Amino acid sequence: MKNFFYDIGTKIYFGEGSIENLGPAIKPYSDKVLLCYGGGSVKKTGVYDDVVNSLKASGIEWVELSGIEPNPRVTSVNEGVRLCREHNITAVLAVGGGSTIDCSKVIAAGVAYEGDAWDLVIGKASITKVLPVFSVLTLSATGSEMDPTAVISNMDTNDKLGVKHPDMRPVASILDPKYTYTVSKYQTAAGTADIMSHIFEIYFSTVKSAYIADRMAEAMLKTCINYGVVAVNDPENYEARANLMWCSSLAINNLLSYGKGTAWSVHSMEHQLSAYYDITHGVGLAILTPHWMRYVLNEETVDKFVEYAKNVWDIDCDGDKFAAANKAIDKTAEYFKAMGIPMTLTEVGIDETHFDIMAEKAAAKYANIFVPLTKEDVKNIYRMSL
Amino acid sequence: MKNFFYDIGTKIYFGEGSIENLGPAIKPYSDKVLLCYGGGSVKKTGVYDDVVNSLKASGIEWVELSGIEPNPRVTSVNEGVRLCREHNITAVLAVGGGSTIDCSKVIAAGVAYEGDAWDLVIGKASITKVLPVFSVLTLSATGSEMDPTAVISNMDTNDKLGVKHPDMRPVASILDPKYTYTVSKYQTAAGTADIMSHIFEIYFSTVKSAYIADRMAEAMLKTCINYGVVAVNDPENYEARANLMWCSSLAINNLLSYGKGTAWSVHSMEHQLSAYYDITHGVGLAILTPHWMRYVLNEETVDKFVEYAKNVWDIDCDGDKFAAANKAIDKTAEYFKAMGIPMTLTEVGIDETHFDIMAEKAAAKYANIFVPLTKEDVKNIYRMSL
Repeated sequence: MKNFFYDIGTKIYFGEGSIENLGPAIKPYSDKVLLCYGGGSVKKTGVYDDVVNSLKASGIEWVELSGIEPNPRVTSVNEGVRLCREHNITAVLAVGGGSTIDCSKVIAAGVAYEGDAWDLVIGKASITKVLPVFSVLTLSATGSEMDPTAVISNMDTNDKLGVKHPDMRPVASILDPKYTYTVSKYQTAAGTADIMSHIFEIYFSTVKSAYIADRMAEAMLKTCINYGVVAVNDPENYEARANLMWCSSLAINNLLSYGKGTAWSVHSMEHQLSAYYDITHGVGLAILTPHWMRYVLNEETVDKFVEYAKNVWDIDCDGDKFAAANKAIDKTAEYFKAMGIPMTLTEVGIDETHFDIMAEKAAAKYANIFVPLTKEDVKNIYRMSL
Repeated sequence: MKNFFYDIGTKIYFGEGSIENLGPAIKPYSDKVLLCYGGGSVKKTGVYDDVVNSLKASGIEWVELSGIEPNPRVTSVNEGVRLCREHNITAVLAVGGGSTIDCSKVIAAGVAYEGDAWDLVIGKASITKVLPVFSVLTLSATGSEMDPTAVISNMDTNDKLGVKHPDMRPVASILDPKYTYTVSKYQTAAGTADIMSHIFEIYFSTVKSAYIADRMAEAMLKTCINYGVVAVNDPENYEARANLMWCSSLAINNLLSYGKGTAWSVHSMEHQLSAYYDITHGVGLAILTPHWMRYVLNEETVDKFVEYAKNVWDIDCDGDKFAAANKAIDKTAEYFKAMGIPMTLTEVGIDETHFDIMAEKAAAKYANIFVPLTKEDVKNIYRMSL
């Protein structure tokens, strides 16, 4: 097992009605927050009302930034930073899914930096100080509610990049599974695929000695498989929504990667897809994942896939190892399909046009991953996914 | 899934050489600590030297309290409190296993209380203020290094009781698997049984909807089973020691109980054994556990045991459910035995003498557990364990 430093300070208020803790959780940190949300669905669903009622009850003022995009843009970050300065805001509250939370994190980091917030994303400038971040989660997917990372897009340069700082981990997050009842079938499926992909990125790695992390990863994969289709078909199933919601946070809050590290084999490829085509992140991941698995399956990796086949899919692995591994990959693709995810790039409007530049950008990210991939490898996987 | 509040603030420095982080971790909180340890094995193994070197490097002074007992006594707690007051100590550092850490926690809580620290254990007085607690772990077992609980014994009254406060959760703990290389076969086995018991106490509960927690519990049980015997037979196996060490912390830091709660079915019975006979806690748990399992196996609970049989022991469960359940219970007992644990109360010098009073005290703790147990039930389980 690799050495690690465990530090997961985010407090989670989990369960139906947990919104009542929002105001009291923020109050010790701030009397005036920037309330960030997306296209306004939170107003239709009533979450917005719950949030402002909790803020009011604790005597917390707010200024709003709405319209944060899926694949949030740096332009929204800069607008948020401007509002924080103008109104002397002392904390940032995200109400929504990963995009809104990611945007809120970089706003919180951007207030103390004079230049364009994009500098912080590309590492041209360092994050020095971050306003306290809080979140009310409405979509189980990215895990941003409990992790220190944000992914921001710049449509001028077709870049979608991650940025990380320990102080960007939310101070507290509200996880009420009922807030995800109105999530569409499509987004529920994409979110579940995103969670599964986060787990795969840790599970399929070169570190073999972190047994406990591998078994926990399998526990979480089983959770996604047990409840993904259920939540798609029965959106008000509390047990399914609750297990998926908690799984989204645990999958990427570092718990699984401590002792192992994260390979990001597929995320790097997908980030190029959504940077160039603005597709739903989880859908891109679901499309690429089975092809990536097939591509990296070889004599060296087959034992890991057999472990996956046996422990996650209950596949009989006593016979040919490659047959078992391929069956597990088939099952993976079938599961994404069963949730209603389009399983080709063609279906989501992506053709070969940008494969070259996307593959070049993705391949630049590959250092110590499960199986190293060159630009040509990435292009091959993109082609297999058409 | 039940509502919960996740708040695990302990920082963990995990891995070989992580002791170098001790001084820097304490420094922001204290310049003078009470350094607590047990019978002095830490001096033989070199851990003591590593600790004081790290303290010195950070300019931290210390006062020592040594001789903390296994099943730590309230007399040691009171002595620690006295030392803290006399020397204006501002943090407590435990170097050892669960007993030393538990004692240190209650010392840290006792400094702000004028009366006998036993009042805090029995709830006669409330814990109001706790000095920051740090730990350097040398035994994988109780999980005290990452949890908010302490168990203290009072040999005057034959009581062994738990006390809990969020501020008693260590601020930071050093987990270096090599520090457990010198743990005896017997204590390694007992510690592993203790970890397994913590997981059982959560796993076997009446809450069925926390699927993710159940799967993670199985992941941790498999970890114990995969490495317990290995560590007993090959004490310097880093992978085994590392996985067991991390498992000891995760098994009881609340991660598994969030959404489920903890039943403490067997711990309550065992606490009476070690209160009256001062036996090794993990050994008492290992002796009682299979008999408790057999005793509570019935039409209502059999499905849970089948889940356990299938997911933890890979037992074919297609046939008779009770046969599968009993096979899993057999396997559990066999595993404890394979680690070299004496499997009867008789072997550890316990006879029927105190069964009546012990059963009465244990039964008083049973409210919302897996299967409610009366005093007579507890006596029956004790008798089965002779």
